[in-house]
Amino acid sequence: MVNGQERAVVSIEDRGLLYGDGLFETIAVRGGAPCRWSAHFARMARGAERLGIPCPDAQLIRSEVDALVDGIEHAVLRLTLTRGGGGRGYRAPDVQLPTRILALYPSPAPEVGPNNSAVQLRLCHTRLGENPLLAGIKHLNRLEQVLARSEWQRPEITDGLMTDYQGHLICGTMTNVFLVFDDGIVTPALDRCGVVGTTRSLVFECAAVLGIPLAEREVPSAELWRAQALFVTNSLLGMLPVARLESWEYDDRAVPAPLLARVNQGVFQPEMPT
Amino acid sequence: MVNGQERAVVSIEDRGLLYGDGLFETIAVRGGAPCRWSAHFARMARGAERLGIPCPDAQLIRSEVDALVDGIEHAVLRLTLTRGGGGRGYRAPDVQLPTRILALYPSPAPEVGPNNSAVQLRLCHTRLGENPLLAGIKHLNRLEQVLARSEWQRPEITDGLMTDYQGHLICGTMTNVFLVFDDGIVTPALDRCGVVGTTRSLVFECAAVLGIPLAEREVPSAELWRAQALFVTNSLLGMLPVARLESWEYDDRAVPAPLLARVNQGVFQPEMPT
Repeated sequence: MVNGQERAVVSIEDRGLLYGDGLFETIAVRGGAPCRWSAHFARMARGAERLGIPCPDAQLIRSEVDALVDGIEHAVLRLTLTRGGGGRGYRAPDVQLPTRILALYPSPAPEVGPNNSAVQLRLCHTRLGENPLLAGIKHLNRLEQVLARSEWQRPEITDGLMTDYQGHLICGTMTNVFLVFDDGIVTPALDRCGVVGTTRSLVFECAAVLGIPLAEREVPSAELWRAQALFVTNSLLGMLPVARLESWEYDDRAVPAPLLARVNQGVFQPEMPT
Repeated sequence: MVNGQERAVVSIEDRGLLYGDGLFETIAVRGGAPCRWSAHFARMARGAERLGIPCPDAQLIRSEVDALVDGIEHAVLRLTLTRGGGGRGYRAPDVQLPTRILALYPSPAPEVGPNNSAVQLRLCHTRLGENPLLAGIKHLNRLEQVLARSEWQRPEITDGLMTDYQGHLICGTMTNVFLVFDDGIVTPALDRCGVVGTTRSLVFECAAVLGIPLAEREVPSAELWRAQALFVTNSLLGMLPVARLESWEYDDRAVPAPLLARVNQGVFQPEMPT
């Protein structure tokens, strides 16, 4: 669905295609409704503000989403917002008419889902460039993730962790990462690169409710080898304890069970229209 | 024209749109032929190799270009190559069927063309993130340039210069930059960010023929205020002496006239099919 019409194409003049000039959200659909819709829409709105793209009306876009996911039990919704048309050249047009694209995909295979055993990760050679202006938002410039994801083919590897050029741990290609220590949980600060995941935000909410210390800070990648346990999050897989990173093994029982339960309940909660 | 068909749309599943997963070239068309075609195709082929995208056959794509620009006296051709379709997720499909897109646009306004007086530039606040894997190639992840270009509206400003986060001068949003000193010309090294322009390469060729010293190296942005003269290049505007950067004035007569003449003759040379 493109701008409310049933279509599966966009103009070759769309700036999403010309320059990656836009944003996206990847949303789990359960029982005919998008999960954590408010969190996804809020992140898109923040990204749109950062890029200077007019954000579509929340009611309009929600009604289009509802029409598309009605009766769908289990799926993935990708919502893309681009700056729209505007001809050649980096300069944005004076009047911006953004393009909104909704597309449904099958859910990821259940074997990497949250009800299964802990996952395996690798460390990527591809690093993340730093740019505070683009950090945190889920924009369409994703070549770094594409290159990192091309480093492995083995299906038993769920994701690869990425560092910046200073050797700080940042995130996975499609997940946020958390390190469990004796005195609390730590996750990398994302003010210079990386995406602030909606499930990452949910982990903060749940940890606060449960009284589990959780801090956001710079994480030198060497800390990976000192952590008791590791977990990763995204909006399709939920919260996943890590069994192994390369040949290093973690004790996934050191991931607080109440946190795991609470996050994985929250992440797949369909959010009905208000 | 998309994959040889007369169309002006691409699938919403094209990875060029999903992730900016592709490359582009912007080519001047003169007298029914693309200017410096070989240089543009070679850069695209290098970029495709870097990203692991199968590069279309040179003959095929050239014949499509010829069909499109036949009889066109003066225009801009944008050639885009994406990784093609392949569903949701960063992982590239096992079998890649790239999308090639050809589009014609009007030439830029003649007042910023090479036969006119020297141009005015500004310094951008938006900086370039560093990523050696993506440096040099003309990929579709161009949000940094879009944000930098959004910093000004005044039409008398031809381009804005950009630095990296360490304060090195890199390039303009749509140009490469050269600094003229007493003992030769210097241009920033582009191994960590920036695009290696085809006209930049032409400047190297012409300078070599003319015996003008030209070096590529790290350029701290403070050197801008020590240069005698400045010029910028791109494939649509050619080589442009700079009259002014912010409120700083340059002597555009210090730009070697034989170099200017030779580059601007070469850059708009239509390259007939072989």
